[in-house]
Amino acid sequence: MENLKITIPNQAINKSLKAKIDTKTKPLGALGQLEKLATQIGLIQQSLNPELRNPHLFVFAADHGIAKHGVSAYPQEVTYQMVVNFLYEGAAINVFAKQNQITLKVVDAGVNHDFGNMPNLINAKIGNGTKSFLNEPAMTADECVAALKKGGELVDEIKNTGCNVIGFGEMGIGNTSSAALLMHAFTGFPLADCVGLGTGLNPAELENKFRILEAALEKNKVPEEAIEVMRTYGGFEIAMMCGAMLKAASLKMIVLVDGFIATAAYLAAYRFNANIKHYAIFCHESEEKGHKKLLEFLNATPVLKLDMRLGEGTGCALAYPILQSSVNFLNQMASFKSAHVSTH
Amino acid sequence: MENLKITIPNQAINKSLKAKIDTKTKPLGALGQLEKLATQIGLIQQSLNPELRNPHLFVFAADHGIAKHGVSAYPQEVTYQMVVNFLYEGAAINVFAKQNQITLKVVDAGVNHDFGNMPNLINAKIGNGTKSFLNEPAMTADECVAALKKGGELVDEIKNTGCNVIGFGEMGIGNTSSAALLMHAFTGFPLADCVGLGTGLNPAELENKFRILEAALEKNKVPEEAIEVMRTYGGFEIAMMCGAMLKAASLKMIVLVDGFIATAAYLAAYRFNANIKHYAIFCHESEEKGHKKLLEFLNATPVLKLDMRLGEGTGCALAYPILQSSVNFLNQMASFKSAHVSTH
Repeated sequence: MENLKITIPNQAINKSLKAKIDTKTKPLGALGQLEKLATQIGLIQQSLNPELRNPHLFVFAADHGIAKHGVSAYPQEVTYQMVVNFLYEGAAINVFAKQNQITLKVVDAGVNHDFGNMPNLINAKIGNGTKSFLNEPAMTADECVAALKKGGELVDEIKNTGCNVIGFGEMGIGNTSSAALLMHAFTGFPLADCVGLGTGLNPAELENKFRILEAALEKNKVPEEAIEVMRTYGGFEIAMMCGAMLKAASLKMIVLVDGFIATAAYLAAYRFNANIKHYAIFCHESEEKGHKKLLEFLNATPVLKLDMRLGEGTGCALAYPILQSSVNFLNQMASFKSAHVSTH
Repeated sequence: MENLKITIPNQAINKSLKAKIDTKTKPLGALGQLEKLATQIGLIQQSLNPELRNPHLFVFAADHGIAKHGVSAYPQEVTYQMVVNFLYEGAAINVFAKQNQITLKVVDAGVNHDFGNMPNLINAKIGNGTKSFLNEPAMTADECVAALKKGGELVDEIKNTGCNVIGFGEMGIGNTSSAALLMHAFTGFPLADCVGLGTGLNPAELENKFRILEAALEKNKVPEEAIEVMRTYGGFEIAMMCGAMLKAASLKMIVLVDGFIATAAYLAAYRFNANIKHYAIFCHESEEKGHKKLLEFLNATPVLKLDMRLGEGTGCALAYPILQSSVNFLNQMASFKSAHVSTH
């Protein structure tokens, strides 16, 4: 990952973008966050007329060794069952992606299940789920590198379709545990600030989850190198997403970050190369406990806050029309001059 | 307005709606606000398979006598110029309504301009702008009643197209002053909490606006009856919107409330008939100072918070895809049973 070059967008166009936005028929700044999004997208594309083309959304799925220890409200088999649900278009992300004309790509990054022949499933299986980090690092070094690399390759393929905006979602029973530890390790926030209810634990189950993650930290400590943190506490879907985000930014694509787990993957990517921040749009603030604090740590302003905690990339799919609106106002609104409207 | 009957939706269907939502392939409650929206829309339509049909958005435009006293950053002529901009599809609301396939209806509720022959403009002119409430009530009793009534008639026409969801926006230089006084009069909040920057005043101009509104209150006081409050401090577009919202609710249509001014119109409607609340969806929280507090007063949770302060119904148009998503997940997602996904 270290050799991926991510360019800081040339800021010279900023002035022209601001001038274009400020001459639209509206009070100065009146479109709020849409103006910021339009500016960011204009900078990424180095264009006063940016376009969102052929949007895609990856759902990376994988299983987690830690799921055996009762950290989730659902059994591990739900990971593969939900993957099948994605392929049969029955999940929330299918509904929202279809509504907003986003092409969905479902990736088996390491689910503990043999899917046999499923033509719409992208087989990128690194292994049948990670090891439990209660006992040992979740991945071997080779597995971690393979997952990061594979994520990049998948983005390369999508880029060839003309796509310039990708959303990143996930499915993996147990992965809020993984994300909580990544957050703790990369930010230094107390573990208690990073651990939440996931798919819906009761108070006793939450206490159990916290104790297990505390024990995992006791066992493995916090490694110094980012990639060691990832291989110790990450998951196949999280590592693959991290590699995919880095590659997308290196290709000057817009990176749509979903909820808590996707933001943890982004956080790792940010540790690998902080320039990724210029390409990232944070689509929503999740109800999962650590997410608000993690977004604040990243100085990120989420587009939506709908009290959701579902993952799958649903926040990206729901925010997408707002991004489209930001580009559309920049391209389609009249100026004070063209519309003959008086200024002050 | 008093004789409009607004029915409280029969709550009996609530249990079935909850059961349907809770068996979808997602953790309980994981779609957050979307689940609440789906429930509200299901209740309004008394259906487990609700639909948004033929969405419309009204932009009511009118002028305000108070605009002569320097309460806005823009001159009064901008009202009519923006109406022309709407008709030529150059404004933000045109862009967003088109993107989300919402039919836009532009209404001259009382603009101080002779538009001549403009085929796409709905002529509902009550007068050439209101009187300045610094000197006398903004409207005569007859004008106020005519505006309320006309709003209802316009909704009746739209209803006949099969539409079941209407957004409400406005344009009127000076109308944050009017909305601030309505908010103060109807809620009892101190005037200072209700007065904001509008289209973008500097601190001295804001101070001037506040002094003028204080003087208006000194002159006219706060009338007891809701309709007297409206005629004293309202505007033609605000009164017409208020009448339109009441009629839409009486016809069991979904009422999409935009920003500060639309919420002030809603507040008046709510004073006329509190049952309207079952039909209202608050589309966004505006940056305009009083709006957050007004939404809290109404126990309203806005769908979006994008730091916008533009009016025109832009918040409604931007929130619309989220409403569509709430209906779509209810109608299209698989259940745990149909998708063979394990529960706890």
